[in-house]
Amino acid sequence: MRLYSMPSSGNSYKVRLILAMTGQAARIVDCEYGSRALSQARQQGALPYGKVPTLVLDDGRVLAESNAILWYLGEGTRFVPEDPVERAQMLGWMFWEQYNHEPVIAVRQALISYPHRAAEATPQRLAELLERGHALLQVIEEALSGRDWLVGDQPSLADLCLYAYTHSAGPRGGFEMGHFDAINSWLARVETLPGHVPLSG
Amino acid sequence: MRLYSMPSSGNSYKVRLILAMTGQAARIVDCEYGSRALSQARQQGALPYGKVPTLVLDDGRVLAESNAILWYLGEGTRFVPEDPVERAQMLGWMFWEQYNHEPVIAVRQALISYPHRAAEATPQRLAELLERGHALLQVIEEALSGRDWLVGDQPSLADLCLYAYTHSAGPRGGFEMGHFDAINSWLARVETLPGHVPLSG
Repeated sequence: MRLYSMPSSGNSYKVRLILAMTGQAARIVDCEYGSRALSQARQQGALPYGKVPTLVLDDGRVLAESNAILWYLGEGTRFVPEDPVERAQMLGWMFWEQYNHEPVIAVRQALISYPHRAAEATPQRLAELLERGHALLQVIEEALSGRDWLVGDQPSLADLCLYAYTHSAGPRGGFEMGHFDAINSWLARVETLPGHVPLSG
Repeated sequence: MRLYSMPSSGNSYKVRLILAMTGQAARIVDCEYGSRALSQARQQGALPYGKVPTLVLDDGRVLAESNAILWYLGEGTRFVPEDPVERAQMLGWMFWEQYNHEPVIAVRQALISYPHRAAEATPQRLAELLERGHALLQVIEEALSGRDWLVGDQPSLADLCLYAYTHSAGPRGGFEMGHFDAINSWLARVETLPGHVPLSG
């Protein structure tokens, strides 16, 4: 398998995490934003959906969308629950992540850390994202109250998926993580899972 | 099963479609926007995630997120491909629908048709959504070029999911559907599937 991955992106990081945690091998092609590698991959037609992460399988078929790739690499491992209801609850968190969490929690990090997004980073937009982000973090905080993992008794793709942009929400996004005890314990739990790798490295 | 469903909403419609097409029974509780039924359901704690559609299973467990409910009701039926790659490609379309398609194609329909959204329906916002929506419809148009269905040779959850807000994009959203021949043929194909039901009725 060949993974086109953006080193700084949480969406790509999710995929690197599941690869490392399940011991699956893929050749990783780093395509940072604005890099020559990214333009080359585009020119070569390696990214038919235009985005990273993109996973190219050995038979040439291509998967896009970070959470769909996560599903593909996770199916049949301990990160996908056997119970059909828990499986659907797990996917529910993953859809929530793309619809609600990513457009706020990841976007504030992008506006602050990517020079090409700086023009959008007005004080009003940053303040609005901060407020909305704290409300979203509160949803996760309450879901984790009295629980170790988002679904069932084991870590699942839902945890890896939401970990990716939540673990950097404080340092990169300026969210006030001190208010979220259950989230902080859960982040630490994800980091002790065998195979865990940091965002960059 | 009990489905809390908003009659006018494409996200709820997806779930009614898969129920009808797979012959699964659920008691449907209509909760239109602003209705007494919706406030009652909220007050009774029937919507722990605050949203419709919400599916309450016979054992009391609750599923939210339309596409996760679609997965739950579709798993094991002909609407979920057996091939793992096709299954992931199907989920890829479903994540794309929530991240890219719904926030544009569904939102323009909502701004035009719901009185409580009218203040957001400025000419500038409607024009921007029109342009972005046509680009998204073009992605579907190209994906359907020379194909009957989005994934593999059979209708899947990806088709039902994207049908919901695409079939009303012209009449409710003002998108210029005359430009999209492959989409129009595909919409007609979905409508001939056994069990198809209209949005309202």
